[in-house]
Amino acid sequence: MQRYFLAEDAGLNERFTIQSADDVHHIKNVMRSSAGDQIIVNFRNGVYVCRLTAVDSSVEVEATEALDITTELPVDVTIASGLLKNDKYEWMIQKATELGAAHFIPFVSERTIIKVDQKKMEKRLERFNKIVKEAAEQSYRRHVPTVTFQPGSKALAELTVDYDQVLVAYEEEAKAGETKKFHAALKSMAPGTRVLIIFGPEGGLSAAELEIFGGRTIGLGPRILRAETAPLYALSAVSYFFELMV
Amino acid sequence: MQRYFLAEDAGLNERFTIQSADDVHHIKNVMRSSAGDQIIVNFRNGVYVCRLTAVDSSVEVEATEALDITTELPVDVTIASGLLKNDKYEWMIQKATELGAAHFIPFVSERTIIKVDQKKMEKRLERFNKIVKEAAEQSYRRHVPTVTFQPGSKALAELTVDYDQVLVAYEEEAKAGETKKFHAALKSMAPGTRVLIIFGPEGGLSAAELEIFGGRTIGLGPRILRAETAPLYALSAVSYFFELMV
Repeated sequence: MQRYFLAEDAGLNERFTIQSADDVHHIKNVMRSSAGDQIIVNFRNGVYVCRLTAVDSSVEVEATEALDITTELPVDVTIASGLLKNDKYEWMIQKATELGAAHFIPFVSERTIIKVDQKKMEKRLERFNKIVKEAAEQSYRRHVPTVTFQPGSKALAELTVDYDQVLVAYEEEAKAGETKKFHAALKSMAPGTRVLIIFGPEGGLSAAELEIFGGRTIGLGPRILRAETAPLYALSAVSYFFELMV
Repeated sequence: MQRYFLAEDAGLNERFTIQSADDVHHIKNVMRSSAGDQIIVNFRNGVYVCRLTAVDSSVEVEATEALDITTELPVDVTIASGLLKNDKYEWMIQKATELGAAHFIPFVSERTIIKVDQKKMEKRLERFNKIVKEAAEQSYRRHVPTVTFQPGSKALAELTVDYDQVLVAYEEEAKAGETKKFHAALKSMAPGTRVLIIFGPEGGLSAAELEIFGGRTIGLGPRILRAETAPLYALSAVSYFFELMV
């Protein structure tokens, strides 16, 4: 059923106005709806069945029933990546939020070239979380991802026990022509699986890091992807597999 | 088989030196190769079987046979998108080149908000093509995508006859919960298919544009993707379907 989007928080029995010309045109002239008819509206805090109360140059609706519909991915994906230069990391988390990531863990890997200053890191984390919140709101996501920092690979390795599956995107796998492991991993996941996908910085991950992370190393296709692109590939593939191949 | 990368152009019987510490370590200590053994090297202009001629602190190789291996997508994907603000478009075409796009067609759509000056457009196109060439080289792609401009939707519509399949990423499809068409389209494509995927600008495509483009409208999942993100989702899905699901 057609869904409309409103950048507001809804509550049962509250009224809202749809003013977007496209949406008003669609409701009035394409769907030919009138007062009393029902439509579905995606608010920032959820999806509601709404009853049209007035149809004119704008459309007024009343939220009558909350629906259990989500724009979240069916699996919970955390993106852990070696710290990148600011603008690249900020682009990545913004796009990755549009693409459905649940959490972000920037970490200082063996080959991270960025210098990390503890005080500055706090400010950067504030900014990262702000970027992610804005991106989540603009994508009408119900879940706002978090960005939490880990000061080293060992610290990240200690978190792996919190996940159902740990995948490590390893460039060497791409070079060895590995193509099957990512798909095999996705096929094995039930809805709600908590997945951690670890990506290296520009210089890649070291063999020692692979050892302490455990999990499965996976390739992401035969082309070399930059550190800020690889997470977007992985999230798109997860969405395609779970949401478009049904 | 393990593949190594060299940022040079190869020719048969020519010699090259591998100096990357990681690669040298891998060849000497992991694979335990020595002079006379064979490895595969991805040069900028192709993939070659090489014979090791010297293994020391660096590794010298001679290209002995060109292989018909490609890092190109099995289908030829052209990304046509409504013109976006410069930095967003440049970022998109760089990532889309890493992800395997064959061609780019920025076009002025009905709702494009960018002003287009003919003289400035030539300079911008030069810059776009430069960005794409650098990205292709860094990704070891054998094909360098082109960026060609179309001044309007009608001009783009006239090109659709050159393609085997035309898909139009339409936000309304996502809102209507459409999930099956993209996958159905990919399943119907044989290797070598020339695909045009059309994306709107920030304001989306109009119903009139859909009419003249023809083709199939497709959804790209339940989340709203920005105009610069949607092509990356589509390319990742194409790669996942054709290259990782084999």
